[in-house]
Amino acid sequence: MSGSSFGKVFKITTWGESHGVALGVVIDGCPAGLDISESYIQNYADKRRPGQSKFTTKRTESDKIRILSGVFKGKSTGAPISIMVNNNDPKEDDYKDIQYYRPGHADYVYDQKYGFRDFRGGGRSSGRETVARVIAGAVAKRMLKELEIELISYVNSIGEILSSKDNFDKSEIFNNPLHMPDRKAYEAAAKLININQGIDSLGGTVECIVKGVVPGVGEPVFEKLDAMLGAAILSIGGVKGVDFGFGIDSTKVKGSENNDNLYYDGTELKKMTNNSGGITGGISDGGDICLRAYFKPTPSIAKKQKTVDKNMNNVDISIDGRHDPTIVTRGFIVVEAMTAITVLDYILMSLLSRVDSIKSIIL
Amino acid sequence: MSGSSFGKVFKITTWGESHGVALGVVIDGCPAGLDISESYIQNYADKRRPGQSKFTTKRTESDKIRILSGVFKGKSTGAPISIMVNNNDPKEDDYKDIQYYRPGHADYVYDQKYGFRDFRGGGRSSGRETVARVIAGAVAKRMLKELEIELISYVNSIGEILSSKDNFDKSEIFNNPLHMPDRKAYEAAAKLININQGIDSLGGTVECIVKGVVPGVGEPVFEKLDAMLGAAILSIGGVKGVDFGFGIDSTKVKGSENNDNLYYDGTELKKMTNNSGGITGGISDGGDICLRAYFKPTPSIAKKQKTVDKNMNNVDISIDGRHDPTIVTRGFIVVEAMTAITVLDYILMSLLSRVDSIKSIIL
Amino acid sequence: MSGSSFGKVFKITTWGESHGVALGVVIDGCPAGLDISESYIQNYADKRRPGQSKFTTKRTESDKIRILSGVFKGKSTGAPISIMVNNNDPKEDDYKDIQYYRPGHADYVYDQKYGFRDFRGGGRSSGRETVARVIAGAVAKRMLKELEIELISYVNSIGEILSSKDNFDKSEIFNNPLHMPDRKAYEAAAKLININQGIDSLGGTVECIVKGVVPGVGEPVFEKLDAMLGAAILSIGGVKGVDFGFGIDSTKVKGSENNDNLYYDGTELKKMTNNSGGITGGISDGGDICLRAYFKPTPSIAKKQKTVDKNMNNVDISIDGRHDPTIVTRGFIVVEAMTAITVLDYILMSLLSRVDSIKSIIL
Amino acid sequence: MSGSSFGKVFKITTWGESHGVALGVVIDGCPAGLDISESYIQNYADKRRPGQSKFTTKRTESDKIRILSGVFKGKSTGAPISIMVNNNDPKEDDYKDIQYYRPGHADYVYDQKYGFRDFRGGGRSSGRETVARVIAGAVAKRMLKELEIELISYVNSIGEILSSKDNFDKSEIFNNPLHMPDRKAYEAAAKLININQGIDSLGGTVECIVKGVVPGVGEPVFEKLDAMLGAAILSIGGVKGVDFGFGIDSTKVKGSENNDNLYYDGTELKKMTNNSGGITGGISDGGDICLRAYFKPTPSIAKKQKTVDKNMNNVDISIDGRHDPTIVTRGFIVVEAMTAITVLDYILMSLLSRVDSIKSIIL
Repeated sequence: MSGSSFGKVFKITTWGESHGVALGVVIDGCPAGLDISESYIQNYADKRRPGQSKFTTKRTESDKIRILSGVFKGKSTGAPISIMVNNNDPKEDDYKDIQYYRPGHADYVYDQKYGFRDFRGGGRSSGRETVARVIAGAVAKRMLKELEIELISYVNSIGEILSSKDNFDKSEIFNNPLHMPDRKAYEAAAKLININQGIDSLGGTVECIVKGVVPGVGEPVFEKLDAMLGAAILSIGGVKGVDFGFGIDSTKVKGSENNDNLYYDGTELKKMTNNSGGITGGISDGGDICLRAYFKPTPSIAKKQKTVDKNMNNVDISIDGRHDPTIVTRGFIVVEAMTAITVLDYILMSLLSRVDSIKSIIL
Repeated sequence: MSGSSFGKVFKITTWGESHGVALGVVIDGCPAGLDISESYIQNYADKRRPGQSKFTTKRTESDKIRILSGVFKGKSTGAPISIMVNNNDPKEDDYKDIQYYRPGHADYVYDQKYGFRDFRGGGRSSGRETVARVIAGAVAKRMLKELEIELISYVNSIGEILSSKDNFDKSEIFNNPLHMPDRKAYEAAAKLININQGIDSLGGTVECIVKGVVPGVGEPVFEKLDAMLGAAILSIGGVKGVDFGFGIDSTKVKGSENNDNLYYDGTELKKMTNNSGGITGGISDGGDICLRAYFKPTPSIAKKQKTVDKNMNNVDISIDGRHDPTIVTRGFIVVEAMTAITVLDYILMSLLSRVDSIKSIIL
Repeated sequence: MSGSSFGKVFKITTWGESHGVALGVVIDGCPAGLDISESYIQNYADKRRPGQSKFTTKRTESDKIRILSGVFKGKSTGAPISIMVNNNDPKEDDYKDIQYYRPGHADYVYDQKYGFRDFRGGGRSSGRETVARVIAGAVAKRMLKELEIELISYVNSIGEILSSKDNFDKSEIFNNPLHMPDRKAYEAAAKLININQGIDSLGGTVECIVKGVVPGVGEPVFEKLDAMLGAAILSIGGVKGVDFGFGIDSTKVKGSENNDNLYYDGTELKKMTNNSGGITGGISDGGDICLRAYFKPTPSIAKKQKTVDKNMNNVDISIDGRHDPTIVTRGFIVVEAMTAITVLDYILMSLLSRVDSIKSIIL
Repeated sequence: MSGSSFGKVFKITTWGESHGVALGVVIDGCPAGLDISESYIQNYADKRRPGQSKFTTKRTESDKIRILSGVFKGKSTGAPISIMVNNNDPKEDDYKDIQYYRPGHADYVYDQKYGFRDFRGGGRSSGRETVARVIAGAVAKRMLKELEIELISYVNSIGEILSSKDNFDKSEIFNNPLHMPDRKAYEAAAKLININQGIDSLGGTVECIVKGVVPGVGEPVFEKLDAMLGAAILSIGGVKGVDFGFGIDSTKVKGSENNDNLYYDGTELKKMTNNSGGITGGISDGGDICLRAYFKPTPSIAKKQKTVDKNMNNVDISIDGRHDPTIVTRGFIVVEAMTAITVLDYILMSLLSRVDSIKSIIL
């Protein structure tokens, strides 16, 4: 309830508004003994920081992270890990014109829900909120590394420009400022963005791959691993859909084309294909976990739009300012962070499934 | 943890395996004073019952529901509502050949998770588990009716056959056995199924619409209404993706094409379009809530597949039996049920958002 | 919310009213592979069954338990375990006179909360609800046995008659119908009950001891092991207080008299005393866990009382019927059950505290 | 799990170690529109601040609170309220000798649980952690005031010195530094403390009264209001027991002496006595809620004790320093804070019990 917490065992609680004093996250349930440093987390958080290329907002956010608790002598202690980021000095004047309801934003619904709106910006509905998720994701990813699990996330498409699987080059992801793994797609997308720049925005998709999760991680029925990953991804502002593996395209084919056949290679059971996206019946099946997040176009655009002001006057507006031309170029790391948090949470839960393994630990 | 519960205020817990003695659900948090009868719930549950047309499995399941607690003299009392359905006599012989891992099923991952498999059938991963969800959904839908909220759910596509919005006819939904709102699409899909029948299966999509939710229902950040609806839908067996409103297609357009512009009509604020699918920033925006569930093809098919038996021998199998040619024709009502449960849960939570409304109730 | 669930990993949900069709419990999160039989659970449940001596109510409740799911071939499967008990045929006439608010019962507050009262009896506030707890406790105790943890529970006092530690005889607990471990105390208490019988009732205390919990089980701050044990015990109808170890008496002494000094015996660290009751700082400290539940006298008494009927008339009443002369003689097993459930839940959680132990399981 | 969160609707998450950089709390679920100021919270938090009399530790803690989020223009916005307190500069040298396990402290059990101890002090098990609870309690109490609910908390006994009900004087509570409502008891307790000062410590009890809660607040079965209040109180460091109303003494009397008889005074139903402590069957019954917390003596004492150091050597120790001679003189406000948080949480939940009241809000 009230929405600021996520996770069951590895549980995060975030706080802070886009134009408040500071933002932060409290991570409860991180096991003791994990190596964590401010520089490691800073490095990860910087991946979503704006202002690093012409393809992101020109707002500067230093996002200097500070660990306030839960880490002693470089290791997690088992106590809640509190990490904070100060906001730049908010200048209220900058937002004096947010006196109308911005189309595609949560302004109106917050007013309806709370009878009260923080007119300085999006408050909790702003993309700035995701800085706290990325910080928590850094800690989760660090723990997953200990468990020999790796995550990769990238921009799969922008508008109608799709990264081709044939041109997939992992090293491209951080080589181009749109974080697409296909150089050609990057170039085409960059061109498309330049045409819109300053006037309109674009949607896009993000893919995230998790390698190394053993079979058997997940819960049945309501807490399927993909159900909770879906919630995690859909909780990111701007995401309007999510799918797994062959996903939405699997609705158009036959069972014989979609089922992953199985075989034994002499050592272990393997899947001939990975249409399941690594999750069958809500439980990891040994294949790479593969999910896709569908982002709508950035709602803040300079192009003229119709809306209503706080006095219920119909007005035409043009939202000037420094807005991301597309959300995916920064959102891709938020997708990875939320995936890391969810997968770690489920791996920890999965330790409690069997009497024999429980006995082997305790006795 | 362990996955059998869903919801925070209107909370359901389901139990029972596909071939066990019985299945059921406990609903905790249903407000007192709601009219509930066995016949009402029976009628709703029958919508997912198999054997009603040639397009569903020929297995017979009587699914006679029985209210065991929480209802007195026709009204909910505030106590947990326990409802049970007896299974038909399970004949273990029928399943003696489930000694291999069925492709596309959770057989292997359950073995890995629990070190133990109920070889009589899918256990908790079987579609039969959804009878309990539909029962709970009936109660939720009944409560939503009190709040003047209406739900519609239907099959939007089967394989590549798509219901056309132009031919949408609400009365068709229960007029044809594929529950498609477009008569022509139904006829084409029926033809397609007949070709595959007994040999292969098809995927499809379900759409669900919720009318009458006031703006302001939902929570920020991690518990956005669409995040939890997404989890609800993805927790249904066979669903591999979910989207809302313009959804996955919004990734391909510009912000100016996707944003819902606003206007004041002299009485209330309205949206010119509903690309958001009724949810903006995770909170209901007054538009109809519109979501889509993407179902993979039924994994049980007669067509030859490769897999592994319990002794790790590579084998070719053909799954004979009475399987649904596509999941959507019965899954559409499960989608509606999970949507009803989630929306009701969030409406109840939304009562707690504001000091002024809380004071008006208590003082 | 709505109160019918308890536990985080080993999670139980109970349902059923005192005079409804049936009662039951769903246990979610029981690890797979545990030996469970109906006869084992029946045997345990029978310990709280009334009518077994002149010191309990003369109502007959057969309480025949039936496992409906989650157990296959004698072992838990990891699926939710649903267990049910049918009520005897409820005769509504028996309760026709419960048209007034019984002093000490929840009749009035249920009316206030739900605007509606199940006038057949206490509904969910009846002691009959505890049959579901005891069933779940049987499963928890079975699992704890696997982990070499033992529980003992007994009646420590009735009215002013206190079992003496000097006369403690474990074999007496099930040798006398008041379940006191001190033969002399039993005889004195029996005499006291006989004086009141049929007219008035008595309070009493229950003690529960848990042996074999290793140090380190519990969580800090809000989820201390004793905090959750306290909630578990206080959730039993009629319990008005709880304490641990030296407990309420420790408030009257000095720190030097209360602190448990420590020493190393060459093999392990030990405590010289166990005033802590086995829990320090909310975490098990290696000593026996020792708690006490304080039960008020049974509220149903034949002696004349003043109250109000449903039409707000002031009336004098005398509650005839077959009531327990004291709650503790049946409540002692409910205390043990709730303790078992809570301790097991915390032991499972404690597996997730450290990176090194997590790695040792997964890698 | 991991213990740093409390509450369901009004949910708090605390963080910070006794000798870390800072401590804080995130409050999620505070309704929007509540007047909250830093000075109001500061004033309340100062009530537990040490160093204000000779009867508390001489450590100075400035405990300057700072609201970081969730409050805008003096009112809660519905967003999580993050409040922080910087610690004084921790001087690690001060704690260099905490290289042994302090009797009565959680040092050893933390080592066992986490394989790792923050040797600078108690970490999360230190009483300093309660500053975050008191801050959250201030917000809860502010909200309760809106609902016309009042709380009073005081020291009821220290050692064997008991406040007499006959001498109860509310104005004395903040008039004497031991916060006892009976001047004579205060004087006797002060004398007792002076005898021990610097060498040994004392236990004591705290009472908390809540006035103005309407009947019907609470949940049945496991989430009884007194069960959760019990957990809240037992989660405070040093508390070893809790009871309600006539409480532990009710175990010694007859039902006719304990039951609260009822009558109708022409306007409303009333209770002749309040032995229930305002809670019957887990639900508020209209009487003042009355609970008692039993605190053990402060474990840190100068008197010689036996223990073990980190190298498992048996050692004699004397804990010098600035320790509270008894916990109750500061703990009484923590008891009030936890009571306020719990009661508010339950009042909010209670709004969701009935169809008719829900309809009256929504429609």
